[in-house]
Amino acid sequence: MKVIKFGGSSLANGTQLKKVLQIVKDDADRRVVVVSAPGKRNDSDEKVTDLLIQLANEVNQKEDYHITLAKILKRYQDIVDELQLDNSIMEEISKNYADLIQTQFKDEWYAMDAFKASGEDNNAKLIAAFFNKEGIPAKYVNPKDAGLLVSDNPGNARVLPETYKNLYALRDIKEVIVFPGFFGYTKEGELLTFSRGGSDISGAIVANGVRANLYENFTDVDAIYVANPKLVKHPKKIAHLTYREMRELSYSGFSVFHDEALQPAFSGGIPVVVKNTNNPSAPGTSITKSRPANEHIVSGIASSTGFIGIYISKYLMNREIGFGRRVLQIFEDFGLNFEHMPSGIDDLSIILREDQMTMQQEQELLYRLKTELDADDVSIKPNLCLLMIVGEGMVSSVGTVAKACTALAEADINLEMINQGSSEVSVMFGIDEKDEARAVKVLYDAFFPRTNK
Amino acid sequence: MKVIKFGGSSLANGTQLKKVLQIVKDDADRRVVVVSAPGKRNDSDEKVTDLLIQLANEVNQKEDYHITLAKILKRYQDIVDELQLDNSIMEEISKNYADLIQTQFKDEWYAMDAFKASGEDNNAKLIAAFFNKEGIPAKYVNPKDAGLLVSDNPGNARVLPETYKNLYALRDIKEVIVFPGFFGYTKEGELLTFSRGGSDISGAIVANGVRANLYENFTDVDAIYVANPKLVKHPKKIAHLTYREMRELSYSGFSVFHDEALQPAFSGGIPVVVKNTNNPSAPGTSITKSRPANEHIVSGIASSTGFIGIYISKYLMNREIGFGRRVLQIFEDFGLNFEHMPSGIDDLSIILREDQMTMQQEQELLYRLKTELDADDVSIKPNLCLLMIVGEGMVSSVGTVAKACTALAEADINLEMINQGSSEVSVMFGIDEKDEARAVKVLYDAFFPRTNK
Repeated sequence: MKVIKFGGSSLANGTQLKKVLQIVKDDADRRVVVVSAPGKRNDSDEKVTDLLIQLANEVNQKEDYHITLAKILKRYQDIVDELQLDNSIMEEISKNYADLIQTQFKDEWYAMDAFKASGEDNNAKLIAAFFNKEGIPAKYVNPKDAGLLVSDNPGNARVLPETYKNLYALRDIKEVIVFPGFFGYTKEGELLTFSRGGSDISGAIVANGVRANLYENFTDVDAIYVANPKLVKHPKKIAHLTYREMRELSYSGFSVFHDEALQPAFSGGIPVVVKNTNNPSAPGTSITKSRPANEHIVSGIASSTGFIGIYISKYLMNREIGFGRRVLQIFEDFGLNFEHMPSGIDDLSIILREDQMTMQQEQELLYRLKTELDADDVSIKPNLCLLMIVGEGMVSSVGTVAKACTALAEADINLEMINQGSSEVSVMFGIDEKDEARAVKVLYDAFFPRTNK
Repeated sequence: MKVIKFGGSSLANGTQLKKVLQIVKDDADRRVVVVSAPGKRNDSDEKVTDLLIQLANEVNQKEDYHITLAKILKRYQDIVDELQLDNSIMEEISKNYADLIQTQFKDEWYAMDAFKASGEDNNAKLIAAFFNKEGIPAKYVNPKDAGLLVSDNPGNARVLPETYKNLYALRDIKEVIVFPGFFGYTKEGELLTFSRGGSDISGAIVANGVRANLYENFTDVDAIYVANPKLVKHPKKIAHLTYREMRELSYSGFSVFHDEALQPAFSGGIPVVVKNTNNPSAPGTSITKSRPANEHIVSGIASSTGFIGIYISKYLMNREIGFGRRVLQIFEDFGLNFEHMPSGIDDLSIILREDQMTMQQEQELLYRLKTELDADDVSIKPNLCLLMIVGEGMVSSVGTVAKACTALAEADINLEMINQGSSEVSVMFGIDEKDEARAVKVLYDAFFPRTNK
């Protein structure tokens, strides 16, 4: 059986839902449909999830929430009208919000999650009704009944392992299952959401739980591109990716998926395919444990800005047992995650995301590093961009790095940092933010030369 | 004034000492001569310092030491005879050893240092006598009287800061000063030696102390070479180096100097020149704080083997605040220094010198890393060679890395690691030991193309 997941833009209105219906009809193996909340119908439109966050805040702060609530209900009403559904579903949805607004929650964080999740939950009920009306026997399944258990972290819940065997029971349901994404329940029965992009996570969890032979993730693009289309004109599509490649690409700035969204499918060894709701016949990008080795070496090029480097130099630091540990201890005291730590003989740099620190903390950090480590020099290198070239077996393929360095050098792009040696599927370059677009472009041209036709 | 230092091969016999005398005569500014113990006269010969270590062990273990002692005295006697010195100096030397053998030392380590140091000390007395006989007013100065104070670490003493102002008084001495290298005294008056290569350290300390305008370090090579002559045929000579370049080169396998030997001169801003006792007219290699920027970008290529990489992977490790610190804590518990820590998204590697661990410790380390960090994978990559390209302002010169990577790629040499980003004067590559010689050769050819003539 296949688990298919649809993003917000694929569920924004009746026209989109008809495409979804057709996709379900096209393949009898598509037995579980995981859905998001209705997304934008056009660039100026608002996502239902964003409206729900606004509503939750208004209710929390005892402000007037009626305009926002009306907007939300209108979104569902429009869909119900366009699909000519029985209005009983609307009554159910508006009653749900009346109840939510009355409910006393543990605290505002639990309240926020409950409001946010309602976007997916009500959409799932609506879509199940639509499928049934169109002659596709469908059943809305609530994550609590399905046993999707999560850790007690509002807004950032993590799936609990016992979930998977619970979900296996879904296989016994005869109808097409419509399953709301984005949330689960704690063992105490509290509803909590995953981090943003959580519907992808739900889809991957369900795919793993029911041991699907395929997880189809429907978006609004034909495929994952080799490079960010905002930086490179008409980049090539990626036909195959491995789990590891996908993970490195999404880490380093690929917006298609949240960093961890597909992990539950990966860990279950479930093949994933990314397809386009608006063009379902396009093959899309398939993501599997391994891919044909004879294909290209480099799969994608990603970049991500907002990093800084903190440079520390001290004569003979590498003779001081525990020096590096003491450096990291200070970062830990500030609750800072670091990404990389390139080192010379008498110096090292810590690369980390800038948004973790205020100016004030930055100054305190520098002061502590200088004084507690008795360092000769401590300084900051701002505006770093991490550039990543990702490809299976790159390390074992001599010349990839040479090719990349040459391309960057010819474009006069200065390398602040190179980091290769741990991950076998990527090499990372640190450059100045201002060079990001040019760097991605020259790397793309180097590894994916345009064929004239 | 100039401080000049001579290595063991420059002082191995009378013929060499006559060259030394001439070098002193050639320049009236050469006011302080720092000397080593007599070195090898030919490849099969023994260094006096090695004989002294043997003697110390024999005396410690109450073994028969007379043959070894005889060998040592013979070395000095040969020089005395060849230079037709008054035999009173030999009586002084043999009395010195008789005393040493009788002396009760704090422990065997202090005894070892006293025996080792006597090689330089007696040679200095002998050379002072020789200079005086040849009409160069000379004075042997003992490090204790000069106030060369060191930390209380037998075999690995470090100079104490107050030493420098003490040594300044040496400027008032009218005669040419002959100063024994390799040792100093603790504040309690115990004689202790520096680590091996310690005569270079003494020379640099004295040069700093007397504020010399030049420290001339006489060896048996015309200059420092761009690459190891054992790996590259007739490599180019280096005319200028900066302090930083010299430091990185000697760290990464350049045998000319001990890693820290020149540091006291560097910290005092004293210019250093490396010259050849056997060819004093050759310009040698000068080492200064800065060098003409218009010169070559790459100064030297060095390599060093005996490293291993320990690879640790764990999903989402970079979200775990303190993960890196906990890794390094475990290495610290084993008393291990690490050299580099390249990292990916879900993995990092620790590069360290293999000789720090026994097989047994290696296994314990791996076990602790795996269990205490709950890592997904922990493995060892043995036989790593660190390859270093050193040159001022390399980082700001786009293309150097590209050139190096291309050369290595064309030679099919696989890069296990690249580390650039902290030190501005070097970039480091990790390769398999078996590729060391080829790698150095191709890099040499890339950066120092042979000019046909």
